[in-house]
Amino acid sequence: MVEQNRLWGGIEAGGTKINCAIANDAHQFLAEERIVTTTPTETLAQIIAFFQVQQQRIGDMNAIGLGSFGPVDLNPASKTYGFLLNTPKPGWQQIDVVGTLMRSLHCPIRLDTDVNAAALGEHLSGAAQGLDTFLYLTVGTGIGGGAMVNGKLLHGLLHPEMGHIPMPQDKRLDPFAGCCPFHGNCLEGLASGTAIAARWGKTAEQLMPEHPAWELEAEYLATAIVTWTLTLAPQRIILGGGVMHQQHLFARIREQVRAKLDNYWAVPDVLENMDDYIVAPQLGDRAGMMGAIALAQQSE
Amino acid sequence: MVEQNRLWGGIEAGGTKINCAIANDAHQFLAEERIVTTTPTETLAQIIAFFQVQQQRIGDMNAIGLGSFGPVDLNPASKTYGFLLNTPKPGWQQIDVVGTLMRSLHCPIRLDTDVNAAALGEHLSGAAQGLDTFLYLTVGTGIGGGAMVNGKLLHGLLHPEMGHIPMPQDKRLDPFAGCCPFHGNCLEGLASGTAIAARWGKTAEQLMPEHPAWELEAEYLATAIVTWTLTLAPQRIILGGGVMHQQHLFARIREQVRAKLDNYWAVPDVLENMDDYIVAPQLGDRAGMMGAIALAQQSE
Repeated sequence: MVEQNRLWGGIEAGGTKINCAIANDAHQFLAEERIVTTTPTETLAQIIAFFQVQQQRIGDMNAIGLGSFGPVDLNPASKTYGFLLNTPKPGWQQIDVVGTLMRSLHCPIRLDTDVNAAALGEHLSGAAQGLDTFLYLTVGTGIGGGAMVNGKLLHGLLHPEMGHIPMPQDKRLDPFAGCCPFHGNCLEGLASGTAIAARWGKTAEQLMPEHPAWELEAEYLATAIVTWTLTLAPQRIILGGGVMHQQHLFARIREQVRAKLDNYWAVPDVLENMDDYIVAPQLGDRAGMMGAIALAQQSE
Repeated sequence: MVEQNRLWGGIEAGGTKINCAIANDAHQFLAEERIVTTTPTETLAQIIAFFQVQQQRIGDMNAIGLGSFGPVDLNPASKTYGFLLNTPKPGWQQIDVVGTLMRSLHCPIRLDTDVNAAALGEHLSGAAQGLDTFLYLTVGTGIGGGAMVNGKLLHGLLHPEMGHIPMPQDKRLDPFAGCCPFHGNCLEGLASGTAIAARWGKTAEQLMPEHPAWELEAEYLATAIVTWTLTLAPQRIILGGGVMHQQHLFARIREQVRAKLDNYWAVPDVLENMDDYIVAPQLGDRAGMMGAIALAQQSE
């Protein structure tokens, strides 16, 4: 038996809520808390308080993994490593999240994006086990993508911001201007939960499966998936996030991706097994936290 | 001094011509030949004849690196490894290029795409030295992209086919239907050299720098570069190929990429040093052959 007395912290930091947890090597969760994201001062103090209380109760953590909303500086050589950059979240620009946590909690913090953490979680114990090149997409309030290529998480110069890719839009079919404050009608501006609510006056949960909203939503997501298929050649694409809770959306997206790739993308396996190419996360909404714990464990 | 008696073959296989060469460890070229791509039987026989003649003249090769047009099966575990797949090049579908060469030349063949070979060449001795995540794009008769991520060439499930990503198109400004036989108005269908000639009735070389063709060309290439910047977060993007011989195009593309990324892409270095982000290949048209030789050397 493996000794299981080590403790790992996980933080899944989103723009509206932040989940904190402590787990052991067997991935048993010993404490969890959900915090509402308000000001940096208040929110960081609550995160620190959670871990300090739990440290006294159950012991010191070896490391904390942090999957964060962004953009965030992931470059350890940078002067602003661990800072949030020009995030649209008011008040959080240029906030030193990693430094603040490290100085108060005295343990290593291992940082990545929220979507890369979720991708890592699905790779270790979910829908991407055994794959080395895949994409994890979350379609919720916003749209974000994490990717693993050749077995390593993709960072590049900063980190991907896949939700903001430019999109073809037929304004005769969809005159909506888009709701992205930066780009208007980028993917997130046209296909996020926020865009759905702004275009139709109803949330994704309120729109019936027969509503024309869904064919349009599938069209945009399929176009983005085709773009990433031709760019990254992933072995699988995992679609998570609140909008994807509408299960009927998967079949629509698969059908449109198949139609768009047909006669060209020379991988019969993909075209014939679209159910295996475009999938839901196996960890559901736990992918991000499982990945944050895994990030902490990688810091050893 | 390193012993330099080993010989390496390189094949740069395009749909219109195929370059063959033999080099030593010092990258001195001892023999070169350009072959016109006709039927598979005739063309492969010419390639084999070149290497057989040179083997008798200067000695056996340790390996041959092959950078090929595609789509081509790169998966060593596949039954059709080394075959061209459903390429638009007539007669070349399902041709066993690697097997044919190996059986005749009795030396290992190391295969990758033409654009991945060029990316590797630029990484070893050109514009991507010291980088681990970058993109090499060729804009010529067609459009293709190769990429390195975390220091390794990107293959994924098949290999990228970046030239065929969907593109936003404002039909009021550009009513051209696009010339891609598969997708019509994908990137290649709108912005390849073939598209330029079909839209304007003149080739890229014939169009003056003041012609409106170039702002439109820059618009499409900039949109694609923004898509890949947000997807791969490359440290640099290298633009090669015949269309990019029009040097004035670089400044136009950089300006449009800067405008599209401004206020969002939180990497001041990129926005302020666009000349260093979007660059010409340092090896020029030699990148593919240098990369093919490097592929051969990696087979050791």
